[in-house]
Amino acid sequence: MEAQSVPTTGVIPADALLKHWQGHRRLTRRMIEAFPEDQLFSYSIGGMRSFGALAQEMLGMAVPMVEGVVTGEWNPYAGAKAMTRDELLKGWDESTERLNSLWPQIPPERFQEHIVAFGEYPGLLYDLFLYVIDNEVHHRGQGYVYLRALGIEPPPFYERD
Amino acid sequence: MEAQSVPTTGVIPADALLKHWQGHRRLTRRMIEAFPEDQLFSYSIGGMRSFGALAQEMLGMAVPMVEGVVTGEWNPYAGAKAMTRDELLKGWDESTERLNSLWPQIPPERFQEHIVAFGEYPGLLYDLFLYVIDNEVHHRGQGYVYLRALGIEPPPFYERD
Repeated sequence: MEAQSVPTTGVIPADALLKHWQGHRRLTRRMIEAFPEDQLFSYSIGGMRSFGALAQEMLGMAVPMVEGVVTGEWNPYAGAKAMTRDELLKGWDESTERLNSLWPQIPPERFQEHIVAFGEYPGLLYDLFLYVIDNEVHHRGQGYVYLRALGIEPPPFYERD
Repeated sequence: MEAQSVPTTGVIPADALLKHWQGHRRLTRRMIEAFPEDQLFSYSIGGMRSFGALAQEMLGMAVPMVEGVVTGEWNPYAGAKAMTRDELLKGWDESTERLNSLWPQIPPERFQEHIVAFGEYPGLLYDLFLYVIDNEVHHRGQGYVYLRALGIEPPPFYERD
């Protein structure tokens, strides 16, 4: 922690932010399942990364970010290791449980604290969490194009249950 | 308004949420500028909408959502009308100003109010706002693939100034 901003009244509760994120994560999980196994780590457009590689990045950011916040201990950012689709889904589900258990350990007043995530990304807690969520939404949007280009109908964006 | 949920302590201030959104909107604006004019409303992959059409959807959601919240008056959702790239950018900048003037008119306690946006989308205010922001991030991610497929380097995702 470098400094602390003046606390201001918040309008989104901490548990609602986690619920929002887990809704996105359920949709991203459906995207991983929607990819044919042989395309998940190979298909690409315009030289971009495969959706499998993007999902590994998401895994490498989610739990490590929240764990770093809770414990104050950070490792340099690293994407999850190469895996099969089943291993990716297993890692995804383990992250889901881990996020659910870590999140309530963050006191609400800490969300406006300024930290340096992974030892190199400075920001307020809520901005860092929003960044991780947005990064997932951003890359998942990329995955929607991959699926459409493969002739596969992606799961609906608004469906988060 | 259908019902009101029990207020819970929030961790993201209202002005921070607008600042976050406007940061995303600056990046989306750079994406609109990055598209060649002749591709903005025509280029597509996998039968998806053009980036210009997606940006029109974003315009049709942003101010009308916040205006509806502030005034309590809703029209059915409609995307912005077909336009040139310059008209789109002009509409974008007008929306930026309008959002800045409307947003502070929403009392913080209203963010946990349950409403029916556009007369058909029920939800808590903060969830509806997050949906509009996420929808922009999602479709902009799609635009990144279009640009890469066109051989154009998109603006960096993390740059929001």
